Amino acid sequence: MCRWMAYSGDSLLAEEMLFRPQHSLIDQSLHSRMGATTTNGDGFGIGWYGDSPTPALFKAIEPAWNDRNLRELASQIKTRLLFAHIRASTGTPVQRSNCHPFRHDRWLWMHNGAIRGFHEIKRDLMLAIDPSLYPDIDGSTDSETLFFLALTFGLIDDPPRAVERAVGLVEDIGRRHGVEHPIQMTVATTDGSSIWAFRYSSEGRSRTLFYSTKVAAMRQLHPDLEVLHELGDNARLVVSEPLRDLEGAWNEVPESSWGVVRANGDDELHSFAPAMPGGGVL
Amino acid sequence: MCRWMAYSGDSLLAEEMLFRPQHSLIDQSLHSRMGATTTNGDGFGIGWYGDSPTPALFKAIEPAWNDRNLRELASQIKTRLLFAHIRASTGTPVQRSNCHPFRHDRWLWMHNGAIRGFHEIKRDLMLAIDPSLYPDIDGSTDSETLFFLALTFGLIDDPPRAVERAVGLVEDIGRRHGVEHPIQMTVATTDGSSIWAFRYSSEGRSRTLFYSTKVAAMRQLHPDLEVLHELGDNARLVVSEPLRDLEGAWNEVPESSWGVVRANGDDELHSFAPAMPGGGVL
Amino acid sequence: MCRWMAYSGDSLLAEEMLFRPQHSLIDQSLHSRMGATTTNGDGFGIGWYGDSPTPALFKAIEPAWNDRNLRELASQIKTRLLFAHIRASTGTPVQRSNCHPFRHDRWLWMHNGAIRGFHEIKRDLMLAIDPSLYPDIDGSTDSETLFFLALTFGLIDDPPRAVERAVGLVEDIGRRHGVEHPIQMTVATTDGSSIWAFRYSSEGRSRTLFYSTKVAAMRQLHPDLEVLHELGDNARLVVSEPLRDLEGAWNEVPESSWGVVRANGDDELHSFAPAMPGGGVL
Amino acid sequence: MCRWMAYSGDSLLAEEMLFRPQHSLIDQSLHSRMGATTTNGDGFGIGWYGDSPTPALFKAIEPAWNDRNLRELASQIKTRLLFAHIRASTGTPVQRSNCHPFRHDRWLWMHNGAIRGFHEIKRDLMLAIDPSLYPDIDGSTDSETLFFLALTFGLIDDPPRAVERAVGLVEDIGRRHGVEHPIQMTVATTDGSSIWAFRYSSEGRSRTLFYSTKVAAMRQLHPDLEVLHELGDNARLVVSEPLRDLEGAWNEVPESSWGVVRANGDDELHSFAPAMPGGGVL
Repeated sequence: MCRWMAYSGDSLLAEEMLFRPQHSLIDQSLHSRMGATTTNGDGFGIGWYGDSPTPALFKAIEPAWNDRNLRELASQIKTRLLFAHIRASTGTPVQRSNCHPFRHDRWLWMHNGAIRGFHEIKRDLMLAIDPSLYPDIDGSTDSETLFFLALTFGLIDDPPRAVERAVGLVEDIGRRHGVEHPIQMTVATTDGSSIWAFRYSSEGRSRTLFYSTKVAAMRQLHPDLEVLHELGDNARLVVSEPLRDLEGAWNEVPESSWGVVRANGDDELHSFAPAMPGGGVL
Repeated sequence: MCRWMAYSGDSLLAEEMLFRPQHSLIDQSLHSRMGATTTNGDGFGIGWYGDSPTPALFKAIEPAWNDRNLRELASQIKTRLLFAHIRASTGTPVQRSNCHPFRHDRWLWMHNGAIRGFHEIKRDLMLAIDPSLYPDIDGSTDSETLFFLALTFGLIDDPPRAVERAVGLVEDIGRRHGVEHPIQMTVATTDGSSIWAFRYSSEGRSRTLFYSTKVAAMRQLHPDLEVLHELGDNARLVVSEPLRDLEGAWNEVPESSWGVVRANGDDELHSFAPAMPGGGVL
Repeated sequence: MCRWMAYSGDSLLAEEMLFRPQHSLIDQSLHSRMGATTTNGDGFGIGWYGDSPTPALFKAIEPAWNDRNLRELASQIKTRLLFAHIRASTGTPVQRSNCHPFRHDRWLWMHNGAIRGFHEIKRDLMLAIDPSLYPDIDGSTDSETLFFLALTFGLIDDPPRAVERAVGLVEDIGRRHGVEHPIQMTVATTDGSSIWAFRYSSEGRSRTLFYSTKVAAMRQLHPDLEVLHELGDNARLVVSEPLRDLEGAWNEVPESSWGVVRANGDDELHSFAPAMPGGGVL
Repeated sequence: MCRWMAYSGDSLLAEEMLFRPQHSLIDQSLHSRMGATTTNGDGFGIGWYGDSPTPALFKAIEPAWNDRNLRELASQIKTRLLFAHIRASTGTPVQRSNCHPFRHDRWLWMHNGAIRGFHEIKRDLMLAIDPSLYPDIDGSTDSETLFFLALTFGLIDDPPRAVERAVGLVEDIGRRHGVEHPIQMTVATTDGSSIWAFRYSSEGRSRTLFYSTKVAAMRQLHPDLEVLHELGDNARLVVSEPLRDLEGAWNEVPESSWGVVRANGDDELHSFAPAMPGGGVL
């Protein structure tokens, strides 16, 4: 499986998020504590927003832990919204086009988990993707397929509803092929302003997902912790596993939930229910 | 575009074919004379038959000219049937799964050329591929798509007819999308025993393709040329461009033709005509 | 051999320099007109100055022409001083640590050319490097060795004199090993403020090197050329070969010369003479 | 640190050794049990002897666990002597020239461990290498430096004595630089016929090393185990950690020891003592 982190807030150097924390994503690439695998060495990627509404991507097929380019770039990239992902392949090739995050126009998408039986149901899923979007599929992963299904079902207009419909379709097709638990996922997606995060699995035992407590509240809990004064008031993190041990800092996203972190601080957390292709909620 | 070579004959070291000739495929990776591009540096691949009926593959995304692994392996691999390919991408990513030759069971396939408008017609082509074969598509190239169309149309039973039908379908779908000249190709395919080679383009101006004169005849022409005495009687080469300048050694495959080189020396050369999807010959 | 370009001036997007010009460095990676080789596909690198006095590096072993990361980063990196280099190996391995530019503290260095007989004289050259600098040598090229010799001989205090002494040493050691023409080079080095460029070869037939005419003068020559109005008044380029055909834009650095481009516009051009290790000028 | 295995015996397919065992070297690349690190993902390499007295090498900078080329080649390479190594870098770059095994003429060398303080003492070690060997150093690791020191001290004529002198020199130079425990190592080297293995560390707490019990004895212990009947009588393995749990199969090489496995079955095991540069044994 994989690990990922998403940051939104004041403009910050990428290395503050990627390398400085005690149990940073780079550390998780070698020593994940909560992931399905301890090693996440099958490539990595970062996506970030600079001056343009379209984000930039840097991805490579080497493990993140010793990548000298990543370390160089992290010292230069200042951004108000960063996605970062380390990959543990579940079968598809280790190649740049299979590294997360995936991009479509101004949107980014990253995923931890798997569509089970993907080899067998891939064709049916592809047929469900909007033909005008189909040519833009670049790689061969289940994760990118899920992104394009969500785009097909209206990600740009209503992300939660689109993901519920995409997941509903995957479960429907999977079950018709005899797959008992067709999907396991934590997902993050963004339009460059808000971050939507999803935690769901068909079997109801999803991979971990956490969001950070608001910085103002954290400063009251830990008035002497210097790093909290370096962070802006709006800094928010959504992560596969906590980046450091700090009381009160991390809140687990409940099973079968989605949430949104907005630049204006107006967050939401809701339950997540896959939508049947016909339109009814399961 | 690309360059390729195919060898069939007595067991021979790969380096004899790949590195020794004056204008070897490795030399062509930097200095192609007849290709659409002089540089073919977007990865390479070799496929060969050893003791098993299924061929082995070695592919990499670096240019062939400085690849130290290729040089090492070429000094060890002895084979009676070798496919080798150097790539110049026409747009799809430089990744191992896009390097030729492609393999399905005991079959190999490699291609020089392009399906024009591939980005637009890819979905229609994919829909035409046998659903049971579809999951085995590994990369994202037009070349591999053509291979799977040929497999769909019976490559294993009747290679020339299957390729004629695959090309007919590509031309039909391409033209319906407004592509004037949908395909440009030289192709080689093998089951591990015979080599079928194809030269065709919709516009009737196909990339070059040559096959070598039989060794016995070559020895009469050049009785003192040592390399001809190292080659077995059955050695045959099919190449994008001649590997050395040698009078009488190379015969151009005519425009719109296919040929087969058989282990027993029983070769054939025929004209090639794309078959309409409905069944009629164009 | 290789090709390179150096830019100094107002803060500019890297893609303006690397991708936009008709005969950009990326184009030269496939189609060099004036280089020793037409293809420069053995890796590439860029070095640039951001907010910190120490420059950042991005280097990769793939050819530059199809590198998707380079294209992404070039759209994000804004810099007032950029070094970019495309490599054609003269024998040492294609690996990141052999890609230019090389860095030491706040200095960058890149080289086109070769130390001839390097394999034989490498040990003697290494012995001449300051033992306190020696451990920082990262790769195995002649180019990096020359950089460390120049650092040993005072690059930080007096770049032209240090390079003259480094080249003098290389020629002295080379000739004592029977190498007729020990060095061929164009070199650029910078401290993040000024750019020093060198053109020299033992045989007096050095690779080409050009510097751009000042922008004010160029605007008088070509008042309607839009790109000249996008460039700031202080923009200066030093390049292996011109980035576009434009009358009056490019001035050849004379044989056996060095020059310096300063941020304040106070440029210099002088003759270059290797200094004997003993101290006398040749 | 790293993990390695060496095989000598009847000609055997590489995949039998690399992929088939329950806790194969490939499995150890993700899940080492006894190594200093659980993950060994910083490149890998294999060296093997075919028809020529000079061995062939295949090395790559990707992790071994998902390398498709390694899997392909392992199904083709039949050899009577195989070295295989997975790397966990202790600081030097992840590049092919730093992957083990290293080769010199017909010799191979691989190492698990480190020369401590290598950055500081590298120059002194380099100076001790025979100047005629120096130019053949290809990479930048401590491991290759140790190989060239051993070559300098007569590896080809008397491997144990040469390694004792090389280690003695490293300890002497290290201690003069204030390094308390200058070396940690298990090493294997071969001339294509015998395999010498070394286990030593300055602190007397060396990484694990095991050799396999002779096959005849193993068959008496486990008469029904099929894999033992596939192995020839002369099959011997030397490994960083056991490839499977099997009673009586693995014998730990004692601390501060060296042993040799000979094709004729005439094995030896001795104590290892670094030799002072002056010639005296410590």
